[in-house]
Amino acid sequence: MQIELNPVGNMCLLSPLEVDQLQHSANSELYQLYRNCSLAVLNVGSTTDDAEAIYETYKDFNIQVLKRERGVKLRLINPPAHAFVDGKIIKGIQEQLSAVLRDILFISSRYLSSPPPRPAGLITHIVFDIIRNAGAIKLDSEPGVITCWGGHSIKHEEYKYTKETGYQLGLRNINICTGCGPGAMKGPMKGATFGHAKQRSGIGRYIGLTEPSIIAAEPPNTIVNELVIMPDIEKRLEAFVRLSHGLIIFPGGAGTAEELLFVIGILLHPENKLQKLPIVLTGPKDAEQYFKALDTFIGEILGAEAQQLYTIIIDDTEAVAKYLKEHISSVISYRKAVGDAYHYNWTLEIEAQFQQPFEPSHKNMAQINLNKDLPVNELAANLRKIFSGIVAGNVKPEWVKSIRKNGPYEISGDKEIMTHMDNLLSSFVKQGRMKLQGKYTPCYKIVSE
Amino acid sequence: MQIELNPVGNMCLLSPLEVDQLQHSANSELYQLYRNCSLAVLNVGSTTDDAEAIYETYKDFNIQVLKRERGVKLRLINPPAHAFVDGKIIKGIQEQLSAVLRDILFISSRYLSSPPPRPAGLITHIVFDIIRNAGAIKLDSEPGVITCWGGHSIKHEEYKYTKETGYQLGLRNINICTGCGPGAMKGPMKGATFGHAKQRSGIGRYIGLTEPSIIAAEPPNTIVNELVIMPDIEKRLEAFVRLSHGLIIFPGGAGTAEELLFVIGILLHPENKLQKLPIVLTGPKDAEQYFKALDTFIGEILGAEAQQLYTIIIDDTEAVAKYLKEHISSVISYRKAVGDAYHYNWTLEIEAQFQQPFEPSHKNMAQINLNKDLPVNELAANLRKIFSGIVAGNVKPEWVKSIRKNGPYEISGDKEIMTHMDNLLSSFVKQGRMKLQGKYTPCYKIVSE
Amino acid sequence: MQIELNPVGNMCLLSPLEVDQLQHSANSELYQLYRNCSLAVLNVGSTTDDAEAIYETYKDFNIQVLKRERGVKLRLINPPAHAFVDGKIIKGIQEQLSAVLRDILFISSRYLSSPPPRPAGLITHIVFDIIRNAGAIKLDSEPGVITCWGGHSIKHEEYKYTKETGYQLGLRNINICTGCGPGAMKGPMKGATFGHAKQRSGIGRYIGLTEPSIIAAEPPNTIVNELVIMPDIEKRLEAFVRLSHGLIIFPGGAGTAEELLFVIGILLHPENKLQKLPIVLTGPKDAEQYFKALDTFIGEILGAEAQQLYTIIIDDTEAVAKYLKEHISSVISYRKAVGDAYHYNWTLEIEAQFQQPFEPSHKNMAQINLNKDLPVNELAANLRKIFSGIVAGNVKPEWVKSIRKNGPYEISGDKEIMTHMDNLLSSFVKQGRMKLQGKYTPCYKIVSE
Amino acid sequence: MQIELNPVGNMCLLSPLEVDQLQHSANSELYQLYRNCSLAVLNVGSTTDDAEAIYETYKDFNIQVLKRERGVKLRLINPPAHAFVDGKIIKGIQEQLSAVLRDILFISSRYLSSPPPRPAGLITHIVFDIIRNAGAIKLDSEPGVITCWGGHSIKHEEYKYTKETGYQLGLRNINICTGCGPGAMKGPMKGATFGHAKQRSGIGRYIGLTEPSIIAAEPPNTIVNELVIMPDIEKRLEAFVRLSHGLIIFPGGAGTAEELLFVIGILLHPENKLQKLPIVLTGPKDAEQYFKALDTFIGEILGAEAQQLYTIIIDDTEAVAKYLKEHISSVISYRKAVGDAYHYNWTLEIEAQFQQPFEPSHKNMAQINLNKDLPVNELAANLRKIFSGIVAGNVKPEWVKSIRKNGPYEISGDKEIMTHMDNLLSSFVKQGRMKLQGKYTPCYKIVSE
Repeated sequence: MQIELNPVGNMCLLSPLEVDQLQHSANSELYQLYRNCSLAVLNVGSTTDDAEAIYETYKDFNIQVLKRERGVKLRLINPPAHAFVDGKIIKGIQEQLSAVLRDILFISSRYLSSPPPRPAGLITHIVFDIIRNAGAIKLDSEPGVITCWGGHSIKHEEYKYTKETGYQLGLRNINICTGCGPGAMKGPMKGATFGHAKQRSGIGRYIGLTEPSIIAAEPPNTIVNELVIMPDIEKRLEAFVRLSHGLIIFPGGAGTAEELLFVIGILLHPENKLQKLPIVLTGPKDAEQYFKALDTFIGEILGAEAQQLYTIIIDDTEAVAKYLKEHISSVISYRKAVGDAYHYNWTLEIEAQFQQPFEPSHKNMAQINLNKDLPVNELAANLRKIFSGIVAGNVKPEWVKSIRKNGPYEISGDKEIMTHMDNLLSSFVKQGRMKLQGKYTPCYKIVSE
Repeated sequence: MQIELNPVGNMCLLSPLEVDQLQHSANSELYQLYRNCSLAVLNVGSTTDDAEAIYETYKDFNIQVLKRERGVKLRLINPPAHAFVDGKIIKGIQEQLSAVLRDILFISSRYLSSPPPRPAGLITHIVFDIIRNAGAIKLDSEPGVITCWGGHSIKHEEYKYTKETGYQLGLRNINICTGCGPGAMKGPMKGATFGHAKQRSGIGRYIGLTEPSIIAAEPPNTIVNELVIMPDIEKRLEAFVRLSHGLIIFPGGAGTAEELLFVIGILLHPENKLQKLPIVLTGPKDAEQYFKALDTFIGEILGAEAQQLYTIIIDDTEAVAKYLKEHISSVISYRKAVGDAYHYNWTLEIEAQFQQPFEPSHKNMAQINLNKDLPVNELAANLRKIFSGIVAGNVKPEWVKSIRKNGPYEISGDKEIMTHMDNLLSSFVKQGRMKLQGKYTPCYKIVSE
Repeated sequence: MQIELNPVGNMCLLSPLEVDQLQHSANSELYQLYRNCSLAVLNVGSTTDDAEAIYETYKDFNIQVLKRERGVKLRLINPPAHAFVDGKIIKGIQEQLSAVLRDILFISSRYLSSPPPRPAGLITHIVFDIIRNAGAIKLDSEPGVITCWGGHSIKHEEYKYTKETGYQLGLRNINICTGCGPGAMKGPMKGATFGHAKQRSGIGRYIGLTEPSIIAAEPPNTIVNELVIMPDIEKRLEAFVRLSHGLIIFPGGAGTAEELLFVIGILLHPENKLQKLPIVLTGPKDAEQYFKALDTFIGEILGAEAQQLYTIIIDDTEAVAKYLKEHISSVISYRKAVGDAYHYNWTLEIEAQFQQPFEPSHKNMAQINLNKDLPVNELAANLRKIFSGIVAGNVKPEWVKSIRKNGPYEISGDKEIMTHMDNLLSSFVKQGRMKLQGKYTPCYKIVSE
Repeated sequence: MQIELNPVGNMCLLSPLEVDQLQHSANSELYQLYRNCSLAVLNVGSTTDDAEAIYETYKDFNIQVLKRERGVKLRLINPPAHAFVDGKIIKGIQEQLSAVLRDILFISSRYLSSPPPRPAGLITHIVFDIIRNAGAIKLDSEPGVITCWGGHSIKHEEYKYTKETGYQLGLRNINICTGCGPGAMKGPMKGATFGHAKQRSGIGRYIGLTEPSIIAAEPPNTIVNELVIMPDIEKRLEAFVRLSHGLIIFPGGAGTAEELLFVIGILLHPENKLQKLPIVLTGPKDAEQYFKALDTFIGEILGAEAQQLYTIIIDDTEAVAKYLKEHISSVISYRKAVGDAYHYNWTLEIEAQFQQPFEPSHKNMAQINLNKDLPVNELAANLRKIFSGIVAGNVKPEWVKSIRKNGPYEISGDKEIMTHMDNLLSSFVKQGRMKLQGKYTPCYKIVSE
């Protein structure tokens, strides 16, 4: 089965020279990435997070970038059938396929070629440029985007809670941004859809920020109507915090811990003292223990100042939505006061250690410094890397293979930190937050010093 | 608790003279109706179909129509709290409240006063005028409205099936019209919401057609974004068939049978021979028996010609949607050929017996002629009245009281017809299709002649 | 030549019953009126105000209202060729034709039939109902409509001045309402078009309010994009003052004097003391004498209080626009304070003597009481009738014929008033403000008592 | 007087890095260009084409590019007062100022830095990229853009004719593109405005394509609502032909001849044989001689094949509009057939000699080969350069100075060609087509070989 289609959005307005570049990329190493991300969005509705299995099922799938007089055309070979209705591709999937072309082949080529030395602020500029090019900064919209973080593998009770929270946010005309996969990334969007509908808010914004190495395991859910694929996890996290007017953290696993540590680490920077960015940790009654564990972990390792950056609200979705609605006003007032943009947080200081891509090789993981003497924001940065590595070892194909070959990562550090970390990770495993299906085998080993 | 709000839509542009008229109505007998319908839309999300219980719960509720320099204002006294978010009414409910004002007080006064003799075509004109005044004829939209009929009290499996059908319709950019209550009236709208979203169809149309005596038992679900309250059940049914490009009949009880007999009766009229109006009877595997019973009933009593007016599709939502999508094209071609409007079926001949309001008094019910010698369309019309009466006896407060006082309706007729009817009604009772909660006590008694 | 076309706007959504009514009207006496108004809008761009000549040129023209399944169709027989481009009617003219159908045949039938007794406020309600039905109250637009009054027969210098004034208003995002003919009714619209374009205001509103007896002599100019035909001159004047946020009076003849006296007469009513309605009399340097004469006339007859209701600004279009822009804010503040609508002045008190149609028969004209002892607002009302009659005698076919037959109107009254009136009218004649072409023969005779 | 304002469009969404680059540019040599172009758009409505005089009048004017947290701000120092209404800049001028920032500072920096070797197709890509970045390719609009070329200095009769032509185009829903100055560049836009209004076409497109060296002499007229400043005359001409679906050539001077020769030269290329691009030479009765002279010139020098590329229509604006309307259909059919874009002509082959910027130094002008033995398209290319040089010598400040210093250009070539050219240029001078005010002193000298 073979189908040709036109990309949409700004990808339907390309010059021959640009199509040449796309095709050039398409023949390069980048191509596999492009193919896999395209497959991920075509494979929407999939119920597994086993990227390798997906790739195996659709190993005959291919995508070609064709040059036409009027621009570019995509040829899909053996695409998943459920992406089509009566032989025509679903419009939303066509848009997401175009986003993959735009973000993986088109925009990335802009930065791959630029030679060092790279000016200060370049990474922040790249993050902005990608988001802007995706049309995700809507100046004429009422500001109010809440990012929802949380596990892709959560219990039904928790999923319902995320949906209810989304509904309450939607009732308050708040838009939703998530990592765009299933679970806590889908629930809030689904709920908000009905909240927006009841308030006649027009088409709500359901922004999905992902990155190439996670997109197959966590494919964009069907509600995402603005998909942006950031080049790596660090730029994705930066995009989340700059684009949002507040954050919700639902129960999750290592990825959720990574996200929380990222934003806490940044906010602990002295220059960000006055920043307004409301963070709510929330879940149903059952999740109370989960958040208690997380809160204790942060309190013990990063201290009370870190704990004051967020609020924990248990089993009260309306309170969550009200809290955030009110705090969005303070966010806007702050930005007005300092002359910052309403739709993009330029004034937030983000240090290099949060921007530089961290490669979770066994060696790098082993060398992460987890010493209580480090400044808190540095310690947060290092902890973030640990959890980032565990996510990679759990679901990212390249690192899953590496673990299979070399055994689990060895994580070492200050004994007290190690004990807390062991407790936290064990609780994640016990609660089934590490994986969608099957028994979980840890990809890490705690090694006290 | 007391709240004042402005109506929206064309109700926010009234002259003092018109507001006087509204207030005049508000003091008349009509007022109770107006108050109850307003309560029904405020009470959205309610999980009972016991109108009396609802009225009892909110007996302190009141609504006042106030005159202001710039038009009319509504004052709500003790309204249900869940119609508000942070003290402000939900926009969708405000719209529905305005629709109640428009359809119960404003438009109806236009026809209450007109004295006989009434010209031919007046009822059809009234139906049109109400729909047009509600803005429900959208000339610039792609024609494609499917009416979904079916029970408000259906099993979870069936509900899921109606949702999935709506999803498949939505994927094909088809809009949904229903009786606007729960169950089979909500499922298709909910499903279509996601179909529309995936196809980026913009805001879909979720038209709810109701009438004053049923609205409390079947309050508009939260997805309805165009609410129209027709003056009586007959005008509501006429609105359904003129506004639609096709019909789906999901499993239901007496109301669903009434609806099916209404449309069959009309289509059996000789002048409607060439009319195109696709009708699909559909449900999940479990519902197969239900439709078999219905089909047999129609075959035995009205004959094969009647059976050919519909198609039964079991457990295949995609096939249902494809079938209707294709037949909408024939509907449009037909209308083009005969010069009819794309968005409103003017050429359909509807006889007086389908238009005249039928009052289900015990006497009227007893006198319905169910003789096999009648012309089929007349027989269908009479059967329709029987089922209409049973719905009234089940859920409409006025008739529930009458049954309580006078005992069940007596239904009599041709023995063969009576046997079939007994079988059909018993199966509805057995399958729990007559009521949402509690044990069902029949409001009728079959009396063979 | 014969052409069929569909009406647009709400006239393309009619029921068979309504089309029957239209056709019925079309066979009645009303038909000639309908035909003539239709001809007037088709004959746009005409350069004569001799209605009889126009009717003579197009005596073969006819228009038929046809019934079709889907509604109404218009058949034009021998229409003016310049209403078409490459065989298709110009869209703007199609809209105006539809407005004629709507206002002459459709809406008027609503009130023709209503029998006495008529409730208080009925005329004001009718004025509102016609304007609302025409869609001319746009709640979601920024309020700011200025009515421009002035002659249809003005000098080139004055015409340029009205255009420049319109440009300055357009630059300030103000919309324009006029009597919709040539001269001072066209210039402001033309100028505003470019002001709106430069300010990127979107499509500006160019509202033309006319009435059947004047439309042929002053056909809607090409810029009018909202045409409303009021039933008579009194309702037209009421529509002007209720719809506007301010008024400009350019040089003109008897019609302009009528308009000024109408609004002054109303504002002099004790209940309108606090009303805000800025009025500017303005023209180029050459027009200074004209306004001085008018001002003197008003001062002498109605007194200083009347003079304080308007401001005279000579040869400064920017000052005019600035003055009105600023005063629109006060108008809005006032309406907010008293709870009135922003887009329609409900609180303005208009007495019956300004609402009752005045028929300028010789007898009626002779009987008008022009005595200095009358209350000023009554005197203003009577003066208004005098000028109204003179306009009729100048250009309205029925009364032109009557004058031809019976000689000029005899106008009598208080000697002082008569002297002032004679002076004013003579100056209009001398300045060529009474007629577009040819020598002017007065249709009146001043008879001092 | 000093005013700060935000740019609009995509210039209000810049990263700090980009603002740095803009500021860097602003300090470079480019700055003077930027300042002058900004002044030109602020000085709209100016009635002189003497750029030096304009620069002298506003020598105190300055513009600064300021960095703010949220992006860039412009500070205007001593701007022309008529760009403001009640102290606020006219929105249209704000847009045009933003276009200058975008095209002169922002987009140009993208290409200034790219080092050789430059790939084939780069110039065509740059032209496209600038137009696309300006938002001037509107995929969702009905294709139909006609470019109008002609003199900025034309007689009133001719100006009226261009206006009437624009009106006829507007009545046919055709959009207008011109060089965006006064005269034949303004008339068609002004006329089309009313044509569009009468046809209710919504806001028409009035595209102005200019270049830095001409913008002061021919500032964008007030109607231009899409301003694009191409880097040089050659890219501007390429933009015209790729963006248009047809061309009109009104009477003009050297610039108009340059434009005609450009498009003829391109269409004579063998690969463009099948291209569809209707060209109409048109003007009022008086202009007949002008076009006869031009046609003879082309016939004699480039031959009958060149003459067949255009149609001459005298004194019939309706015929011009009808001809183009019909031919736009063929243009679209052709593009469909070859798979080209509807809104941009990619398949047109444009050779390097039409793309390379030609610098009209005395030496370059003297060396242009005007030999009859050259292939016709090359000869056309060379003639184009001659006229390009003459335009520069007439109005572009740099070259006006050079002529003042070094005397007139010497133009030499084949004797026959020289004779024809002398005739043509003399006729331009005689007809006053070279300059707006004052006596014209030729900037060239014909030197027969």
